[in-house]
Amino acid sequence: MSNHPRDPFPAGGNPDAHATGMPVVTVIGDGQLARMMQTAAIEMGQSVRLLAGSAGASAAQVAADVIIGDYTDLDALRGAAEGASVVTFDHEHVPARHLRALMDAGVNVQPGPDALAHAQDKLIMRERLRQLGAPVPPFTAVDSVDDATTFFDDVDSRVCLKARRGGYDGKGVWFPGTREELIRLVTELLGRGVPLMAEEKVRLDRELSAMVARTPSGRCAAWPVVESVQTAGVCTEAVAPAPDLPPALGERAGELAVKIAGDLGVTGVLAVELFLVHADSGGEARILVNELAMRPHNTGHWTQDGSRTSQFEQHIRAVLDLPLGSPEPVGGTTVMANVLGADTDPDQSLHDRMIEVWNRFPDAKIHLYGKDWRPGRKIGHVNLTSDPGLGGGVPELRRRARLAAHYLVHATWADGWISD
Amino acid sequence: MSNHPRDPFPAGGNPDAHATGMPVVTVIGDGQLARMMQTAAIEMGQSVRLLAGSAGASAAQVAADVIIGDYTDLDALRGAAEGASVVTFDHEHVPARHLRALMDAGVNVQPGPDALAHAQDKLIMRERLRQLGAPVPPFTAVDSVDDATTFFDDVDSRVCLKARRGGYDGKGVWFPGTREELIRLVTELLGRGVPLMAEEKVRLDRELSAMVARTPSGRCAAWPVVESVQTAGVCTEAVAPAPDLPPALGERAGELAVKIAGDLGVTGVLAVELFLVHADSGGEARILVNELAMRPHNTGHWTQDGSRTSQFEQHIRAVLDLPLGSPEPVGGTTVMANVLGADTDPDQSLHDRMIEVWNRFPDAKIHLYGKDWRPGRKIGHVNLTSDPGLGGGVPELRRRARLAAHYLVHATWADGWISD
Ligand SMILES: Nc1ncnc2c1ncn2[C@@H]1O[C@H](COP(=O)(O)OP(=O)(O)OP(=O)(O)O)[C@@H](O)[C@H]1O
Ligand SMILES: Nc1ncnc2c1ncn2[C@@H]1O[C@H](COP(=O)(O)OP(=O)(O)OP(=O)(O)O)[C@@H](O)[C@H]1O
Ligand SMILES: [Mg+2]
Ligand SMILES: [Mg+2]
Repeated sequence: MSNHPRDPFPAGGNPDAHATGMPVVTVIGDGQLARMMQTAAIEMGQSVRLLAGSAGASAAQVAADVIIGDYTDLDALRGAAEGASVVTFDHEHVPARHLRALMDAGVNVQPGPDALAHAQDKLIMRERLRQLGAPVPPFTAVDSVDDATTFFDDVDSRVCLKARRGGYDGKGVWFPGTREELIRLVTELLGRGVPLMAEEKVRLDRELSAMVARTPSGRCAAWPVVESVQTAGVCTEAVAPAPDLPPALGERAGELAVKIAGDLGVTGVLAVELFLVHADSGGEARILVNELAMRPHNTGHWTQDGSRTSQFEQHIRAVLDLPLGSPEPVGGTTVMANVLGADTDPDQSLHDRMIEVWNRFPDAKIHLYGKDWRPGRKIGHVNLTSDPGLGGGVPELRRRARLAAHYLVHATWADGWISD
Repeated sequence: MSNHPRDPFPAGGNPDAHATGMPVVTVIGDGQLARMMQTAAIEMGQSVRLLAGSAGASAAQVAADVIIGDYTDLDALRGAAEGASVVTFDHEHVPARHLRALMDAGVNVQPGPDALAHAQDKLIMRERLRQLGAPVPPFTAVDSVDDATTFFDDVDSRVCLKARRGGYDGKGVWFPGTREELIRLVTELLGRGVPLMAEEKVRLDRELSAMVARTPSGRCAAWPVVESVQTAGVCTEAVAPAPDLPPALGERAGELAVKIAGDLGVTGVLAVELFLVHADSGGEARILVNELAMRPHNTGHWTQDGSRTSQFEQHIRAVLDLPLGSPEPVGGTTVMANVLGADTDPDQSLHDRMIEVWNRFPDAKIHLYGKDWRPGRKIGHVNLTSDPGLGGGVPELRRRARLAAHYLVHATWADGWISD
């Protein structure tokens, strides 16, 4: 086209999927986080290229520029990065040495491997956070059965054993009840070459999540602190803002997340998973950091319908070093309930289940990831934002979100409700 | 996968782009409306197939299942419809006989050709609306120069000449100032085979838009009535809800849109473009219908950031006969300003222009369509929702939205603002 300035972002991959003058964001990963980053990017006129494991995966299914390959294969990473304005991730499992190789070749990787190390390895994370003065549970490296049993005694048998790397959704987290169980576990895991650490099993009141976005130039924006509910290690629910949180505590949690983002040089979205604990004597509430995620996070899904800027839009803006959007909530409270595959897949089609849920709860915002059913699999989430017109407050909102999410996978109403 | 019910929506086209158990929505068209329908569908776990004119077009650029073809070619339409749960549109230009052929072959077409006729042909629309008792300006068919000049006298030379079919953005609308100009225009246009009509050139105070969605089962949801601003026939701005609209008038406009949707059997989103007029003597305000659009509409873009349910999500839900979402606004007022290609394309990249706009207006929601620059071309829009914290009310919101949209194509601030 005549009179057109030179494209500052020349496209590699599928050039048809690329708008002139706009960045190409390569996302390593093909899950729901990549899928939702993509819709956010498209709305801003940008294009996303994926490095996906398969063409039918959640994000790959709906993407126009997909490279099929393995994220542990440097050549595949190189191909996906070609011509990209920035490379980012929907998980933390890309080997650091590969990211360094990309950076050496001039690729803009956000977040970088030095920051990512603290989301990849729970021991490195704990050590660094302690060094920064952030509150963490007592912990130790476990390189031998001896390390584990000594720690077991130190924490009065309240032990939580963790795989240092690769865990998610509670896979890689164990709570051995006895010394014998601990010894058995550690022997088996170390024998299989799984690097381990142990920490105190915290007497937690609730779990919180403090989420921020940070740009390479150091701009930060923090969403309100969220309460998250884990069931068997899997996030099932998030309530934003966290109900009945002492304001000072919420502020401290937000500041802590901003400080961690800055100190570790995080770019994009950072989720700081927190434990809320009371001192044994019933003293003042305290927060402890559980772990860090450097990407959009399950506890941030509420932002799609409950905040001026969704975590997916914000992540894209942050890794591109664009000014950040407002993290303000749009309504009162937003509840997010995860849609987790039931033990069996009902005969009723997912489409018909959506109809039933919307007939009962017209205000449910249903997000689905295009994933086939598997027991326990995250296949979607439901957001509900409080409406001044609806009674019952936050507990009622939570009840409704849970009922909706339950119906979507069971095709039954957990409270026995029957439509007329 | 074992234990999986039979897919009620088997995929044609690209089966990788299709999630089991979920509908496939075929959209005929490749513009920004199709692009934004698609992101909405993806969030609900659905898949969209496009019949697009080219692979680089706004929607095709970002779609995983694209059939390149001509929407006037029945075979192309047949291919795009294969295996689709429903066929819908991002424009009204598909020939009715082709839609009837699809329906005869069992394809679910929404909206159907009988409804669409009233969005395709302005004379058919006017005649039908008059028959329904809806308020319309005086009008006539123009099959000869005589028809035109007789009407010219009837309306005291206040004439508006329109192509019956195929117009958009004011192309196909003329306001001849003199009898001679009218004769010249009509002679030329009829000579070129353009079917014409004429109507009174209305003394309009403002333009409004009443938007509703309707499902095949007859459910309806109406958004608040919007004020729309046209500049040289092109929509440049929309304010939702329309400021200072007498509530009774807003209600009447909403009811009228619901009635039209029902009477014409419209499915999906319907926009009823309205003129607000005062009686000559300064009497009571009245509304007149200008025209109908049966698809998401420019005056509904505000819903993406200002309503619980965006018009794109609602259109998809409506054509699939799903329960409709809430059309309630989420904030106070939302202003939408169109981003229209300037006469020349500035050297600063579009990406850098976004940065500048966000630096000045962090709350601007910028939507871009992935389109290359052309003078006057709709390449995006900006939404701004009022924030109780920001002074100046709606006029200030409008000023800011206009400034942002202007910067995005001119790379200059229309008010001379200089960042520090
Ligand atoms: N030290 C601890 N004390 C008590 N409970 C814990 C402790 N560590 C983890 N948990 C529980 O197990 C859950 C999962 O732990 P963690 O977040 O470390 O695992 P993960 O597999 O990495 O999960 P994610 O899906 O969040 O990545 C926590 O949310 C919490 O409910
Ligand atoms: N009868 C009329 N009297 C006065 N102004 C009119 C009249 N008809 C049209 N206009 C002006 O011209 C604009 C475009 O007219 P119309 O909506 O019929 O054209 P269009 O090309 O189909 O536009 P669209 O892009 O909305 O499809 C209107 O929004 C209005 O501003
Ligand atoms: Mg965790
Ligand atoms: Mg019009």
